[in-house]
Amino acid sequence: MTNAQAAPRRKLIKRISLLTRKTGMSKEEFLKHWNDHLPISHDVPGLRRYVLCHIVSEPVRTDVPLVWDIGEVDGIAETWFDDQAATDRAFASPEGKRWLAHGASFIGRQKTFVVEEEVVIELAPDHPS
Amino acid sequence: MTNAQAAPRRKLIKRISLLTRKTGMSKEEFLKHWNDHLPISHDVPGLRRYVLCHIVSEPVRTDVPLVWDIGEVDGIAETWFDDQAATDRAFASPEGKRWLAHGASFIGRQKTFVVEEEVVIELAPDHPS
Repeated sequence: MTNAQAAPRRKLIKRISLLTRKTGMSKEEFLKHWNDHLPISHDVPGLRRYVLCHIVSEPVRTDVPLVWDIGEVDGIAETWFDDQAATDRAFASPEGKRWLAHGASFIGRQKTFVVEEEVVIELAPDHPS
Repeated sequence: MTNAQAAPRRKLIKRISLLTRKTGMSKEEFLKHWNDHLPISHDVPGLRRYVLCHIVSEPVRTDVPLVWDIGEVDGIAETWFDDQAATDRAFASPEGKRWLAHGASFIGRQKTFVVEEEVVIELAPDHPS
Protein backbone atom coordinates (compact mmCIF):
# COMPACT_ATOMS: atom_id res chain seq x y z
CA MET A 1 0.00 0.00 0.00
CA THR A 2 2.98 2.33 0.23
CA ASN A 3 3.86 4.69 -2.57
CA ALA A 4 7.37 4.15 -3.81
CA GLN A 5 8.02 7.59 -5.20
CA ALA A 6 8.02 10.47 -2.77
CA ALA A 7 6.97 9.69 0.78
CA PRO A 8 9.82 9.73 3.29
CA ARG A 9 11.14 6.21 3.77
CA ARG A 10 11.53 4.89 7.28
CA LYS A 11 15.26 4.55 6.79
CA LEU A 12 15.64 8.33 6.63
CA ILE A 13 16.20 9.79 10.07
CA LYS A 14 13.80 12.47 11.24
CA ARG A 15 13.99 15.19 13.87
CA ILE A 16 10.83 16.52 15.51
CA SER A 17 11.48 19.79 17.38
CA LEU A 18 9.01 21.61 19.62
CA LEU A 19 9.90 25.30 19.62
CA THR A 20 9.10 28.23 21.88
CA ARG A 21 9.99 31.85 21.17
CA LYS A 22 12.54 33.74 23.24
CA THR A 23 11.33 35.40 26.42
CA GLY A 24 9.93 38.84 25.66
CA MET A 25 9.34 38.11 21.97
CA SER A 26 5.83 38.30 20.54
CA LYS A 27 4.31 35.38 18.64
CA GLU A 28 4.24 37.56 15.52
CA GLU A 29 7.95 38.35 15.81
CA PHE A 30 8.69 34.66 16.26
CA LEU A 31 6.76 33.75 13.12
CA LYS A 32 8.53 36.48 11.15
CA HIS A 33 11.93 35.14 12.24
CA TRP A 34 10.79 31.60 11.42
CA ASN A 35 9.78 32.74 7.95
CA ASP A 36 13.20 34.36 7.47
CA HIS A 37 14.70 31.01 8.51
CA LEU A 38 13.27 29.14 5.52
CA PRO A 39 15.40 30.45 2.61
CA ILE A 40 18.60 29.63 4.54
CA SER A 41 17.46 26.01 4.91
CA HIS A 42 17.84 25.42 1.17
CA ASP A 43 21.61 25.85 1.56
CA VAL A 44 22.00 23.14 4.22
CA PRO A 45 23.73 20.13 2.63
CA GLY A 46 21.89 16.84 3.02
CA LEU A 47 18.65 18.32 4.38
CA ARG A 48 16.26 16.05 2.47
CA ARG A 49 12.93 17.30 3.75
CA TYR A 50 11.81 20.19 5.97
CA VAL A 51 8.27 20.78 7.20
CA LEU A 52 6.93 23.47 9.50
CA CYS A 53 3.92 22.52 11.60
CA HIS A 54 1.72 25.47 12.52
CA ILE A 55 -0.34 24.69 15.62
CA VAL A 56 -4.09 24.97 15.19
CA SER A 57 -5.25 23.47 18.49
CA GLU A 58 -4.12 21.31 21.41
CA PRO A 59 -7.02 18.95 22.18
CA VAL A 60 -7.05 16.98 25.43
CA ARG A 61 -8.29 13.39 25.68
CA THR A 62 -10.61 12.78 28.57
CA ASP A 63 -10.13 9.00 28.32
CA VAL A 64 -6.40 9.15 29.09
CA PRO A 65 -5.67 9.44 32.82
CA LEU A 66 -2.77 11.85 33.28
CA VAL A 67 -2.77 15.57 32.48
CA TRP A 68 0.34 16.74 30.61
CA ASP A 69 1.10 20.43 30.57
CA ILE A 70 4.40 21.00 28.78
CA GLY A 71 4.01 24.78 28.58
CA GLU A 72 3.59 27.05 25.57
CA VAL A 73 4.69 25.74 22.16
CA ASP A 74 4.90 28.20 19.24
CA GLY A 75 5.57 25.73 16.45
CA ILE A 76 6.98 22.34 15.54
CA ALA A 77 9.70 21.78 12.95
CA GLU A 78 10.43 18.47 11.27
CA THR A 79 13.59 17.68 9.31
CA TRP A 80 14.81 14.55 7.52
CA PHE A 81 18.40 13.52 6.77
CA ASP A 82 19.76 10.29 5.32
CA ASP A 83 21.14 9.18 8.69
CA GLN A 84 22.79 10.52 11.84
CA ALA A 85 26.18 10.88 10.16
CA ALA A 86 24.60 13.00 7.42
CA THR A 87 22.91 15.12 10.10
CA ASP A 88 26.23 15.63 11.88
CA ARG A 89 27.96 16.61 8.63
CA ALA A 90 25.16 19.05 7.79
CA PHE A 91 25.30 20.73 11.19
CA ALA A 92 29.11 20.98 11.01
CA SER A 93 29.07 22.62 7.57
CA PRO A 94 29.28 26.44 7.25
CA GLU A 95 25.73 26.52 5.82
CA GLY A 96 24.41 24.31 8.65
CA LYS A 97 26.15 26.40 11.31
CA ARG A 98 24.63 29.54 9.79
CA TRP A 99 21.18 27.94 9.85
CA LEU A 100 21.54 26.82 13.48
CA ALA A 101 22.87 30.22 14.58
CA HIS A 102 19.92 31.93 12.94
CA GLY A 103 17.54 29.57 14.74
CA ALA A 104 19.22 30.26 18.07
CA SER A 105 18.58 33.98 17.55
CA PHE A 106 14.81 33.57 18.03
CA ILE A 107 14.27 30.15 19.69
CA GLY A 108 14.09 30.36 23.47
CA ARG A 109 13.35 26.72 24.18
CA GLN A 110 13.60 23.62 22.02
CA LYS A 111 12.75 19.97 22.65
CA THR A 112 14.04 17.65 19.93
CA PHE A 113 13.32 13.99 19.30
CA VAL A 114 15.39 12.06 16.79
CA VAL A 115 13.10 9.35 15.49
CA GLU A 116 12.78 6.49 13.03
CA GLU A 117 9.51 6.51 11.13
CA GLU A 118 7.31 3.46 10.71
CA VAL A 119 4.71 4.21 8.05
CA VAL A 120 1.56 2.27 8.94
CA ILE A 121 -0.83 3.88 6.45
CA GLU A 122 0.53 5.75 3.43
CA LEU A 123 -1.40 8.45 1.60
CA ALA A 124 -2.96 7.00 -1.54
CA PRO A 125 -1.13 8.32 -4.60
CA ASP A 126 -4.43 9.28 -6.21
CA HIS A 127 -5.71 11.19 -3.17
CA PRO A 128 -7.16 14.46 -4.52
CA SER A 129 -5.48 16.69 -1.94
CA MET B 1 10.49 21.33 -6.27
CA THR B 2 7.56 19.53 -4.67
CA ASN B 3 6.47 16.13 -5.82
CA ALA B 4 2.84 16.07 -6.82
CA GLN B 5 2.18 12.40 -6.23
CA ALA B 6 2.38 11.16 -2.70
CA ALA B 7 3.66 13.61 -0.11
CA PRO B 8 0.98 14.89 2.30
CA ARG B 9 -0.33 18.25 1.12
CA ARG B 10 -0.47 21.12 3.58
CA LYS B 11 -4.22 21.25 3.28
CA LEU B 12 -4.54 17.90 5.02
CA ILE B 13 -4.77 18.32 8.77
CA LYS B 14 -2.23 16.51 10.90
CA ARG B 15 -2.12 15.43 14.53
CA ILE B 16 1.20 15.01 16.35
CA SER B 17 0.79 13.10 19.63
CA LEU B 18 3.47 12.57 22.25
CA LEU B 19 2.68 9.37 24.15
CA THR B 20 3.73 7.92 27.48
CA ARG B 21 2.86 4.44 28.72
CA LYS B 22 0.54 3.87 31.67
CA THR B 23 2.07 3.97 35.13
CA GLY B 24 3.46 0.56 36.04
CA MET B 25 3.71 -0.64 32.44
CA SER B 26 7.09 -1.58 31.00
CA LYS B 27 8.38 -0.01 27.80
CA GLU B 28 8.24 -3.45 26.16
CA GLU B 29 4.58 -3.91 27.12
CA PHE B 30 3.80 -0.44 25.75
CA LEU B 31 5.43 -1.23 22.41
CA LYS B 32 3.57 -4.54 22.20
CA HIS B 33 0.24 -2.76 22.76
CA TRP B 34 1.22 -0.11 20.22
CA ASN B 35 1.96 -2.85 17.70
CA ASP B 36 -1.46 -4.40 18.36
CA HIS B 37 -2.93 -0.94 17.74
CA LEU B 38 -1.81 -0.84 14.11
CA PRO B 39 -4.15 -3.35 12.42
CA ILE B 40 -7.19 -1.61 13.96
CA SER B 41 -6.10 1.69 12.39
CA HIS B 42 -6.82 0.37 8.90
CA ASP B 43 -10.52 0.28 9.76
CA VAL B 44 -10.75 3.95 10.77
CA PRO B 45 -12.69 5.83 8.06
CA GLY B 46 -10.89 8.84 6.61
CA LEU B 47 -7.51 8.14 8.24
CA ARG B 48 -5.34 9.13 5.26
CA ARG B 49 -1.88 8.59 6.71
CA TYR B 50 -0.51 7.14 9.96
CA VAL B 51 3.14 7.16 11.01
CA LEU B 52 4.73 5.91 14.23
CA CYS B 53 7.88 7.71 15.32
CA HIS B 54 10.22 5.55 17.39
CA ILE B 55 12.51 7.72 19.51
CA VAL B 56 16.23 7.17 18.96
CA SER B 57 17.63 10.07 20.98
CA GLU B 58 16.70 13.41 22.54
CA PRO B 59 19.61 15.77 21.80
CA VAL B 60 19.88 19.10 23.64
CA ARG B 61 21.06 22.31 21.98
CA THR B 62 23.61 24.24 24.00
CA ASP B 63 23.00 27.41 21.94
CA VAL B 64 19.36 27.73 23.01
CA PRO B 65 18.95 29.32 26.44
CA LEU B 66 16.14 27.52 28.28
CA VAL B 67 16.16 23.90 29.42
CA TRP B 68 12.92 22.03 28.63
CA ASP B 69 12.25 18.82 30.48
CA ILE B 70 8.83 17.52 29.50
CA GLY B 71 9.27 14.12 31.14
CA GLU B 72 9.49 10.66 29.62
CA VAL B 73 8.08 10.13 26.12
CA ASP B 74 7.69 6.55 24.82
CA GLY B 75 6.72 7.33 21.25
CA ILE B 76 5.17 9.88 18.91
CA ALA B 77 2.22 9.15 16.62
CA GLU B 78 1.28 11.22 13.59
CA THR B 79 -2.05 11.02 11.77
CA TRP B 80 -3.50 12.88 8.79
CA PHE B 81 -7.15 13.49 7.93
CA ASP B 82 -8.71 15.63 5.21
CA ASP B 83 -9.81 18.28 7.70
CA GLN B 84 -11.16 18.70 11.23
CA ALA B 85 -14.68 17.64 10.24
CA ALA B 86 -13.29 14.41 8.76
CA THR B 87 -11.34 13.85 12.00
CA ASP B 88 -14.47 14.36 14.08
CA ARG B 89 -16.44 11.94 11.88
CA ALA B 90 -13.67 9.35 12.12
CA PHE B 91 -13.49 9.56 15.91
CA ALA B 92 -17.29 9.35 16.20
CA SER B 93 -17.52 6.23 14.02
CA PRO B 94 -17.67 2.75 15.63
CA GLU B 95 -14.23 1.90 14.15
CA GLY B 96 -12.74 5.18 15.39
CA LYS B 97 -14.20 4.71 18.87
CA ARG B 98 -12.74 1.18 18.97
CA TRP B 99 -9.34 2.53 17.93
CA LEU B 100 -9.41 5.30 20.56
CA ALA B 101 -10.57 2.92 23.29
CA HIS B 102 -7.73 0.55 22.47
CA GLY B 103 -5.26 3.45 22.66
CA ALA B 104 -6.62 4.52 26.03
CA SER B 105 -5.95 1.01 27.36
CA PHE B 106 -2.16 1.52 27.26
CA ILE B 107 -1.56 5.30 26.96
CA GLY B 108 -1.06 6.97 30.33
CA ARG B 109 -0.34 10.47 29.09
CA GLN B 110 -0.84 12.11 25.71
CA LYS B 111 -0.03 15.57 24.39
CA THR B 112 -1.59 16.27 21.00
CA PHE B 113 -1.01 19.14 18.60
CA VAL B 114 -3.34 19.62 15.64
CA VAL B 115 -1.22 21.30 12.98
CA GLU B 116 -1.18 22.57 9.42
CA GLU B 117 1.91 21.54 7.51
CA GLU B 118 4.00 23.94 5.46
CA VAL B 119 6.38 21.92 3.31
CA VAL B 120 9.55 23.98 2.87
CA ILE B 121 11.75 21.29 1.29
CA GLU B 122 10.19 18.22 -0.28
CA LEU B 123 12.01 14.92 -0.70
CA ALA B 124 13.27 14.60 -4.27
CA PRO B 125 11.22 11.99 -6.12
CA ASP B 126 14.40 10.30 -7.31
CA HIS B 127 15.97 10.12 -3.85
CA PRO B 128 17.39 6.59 -3.53
CA SER B 129 15.99 5.96 -0.06
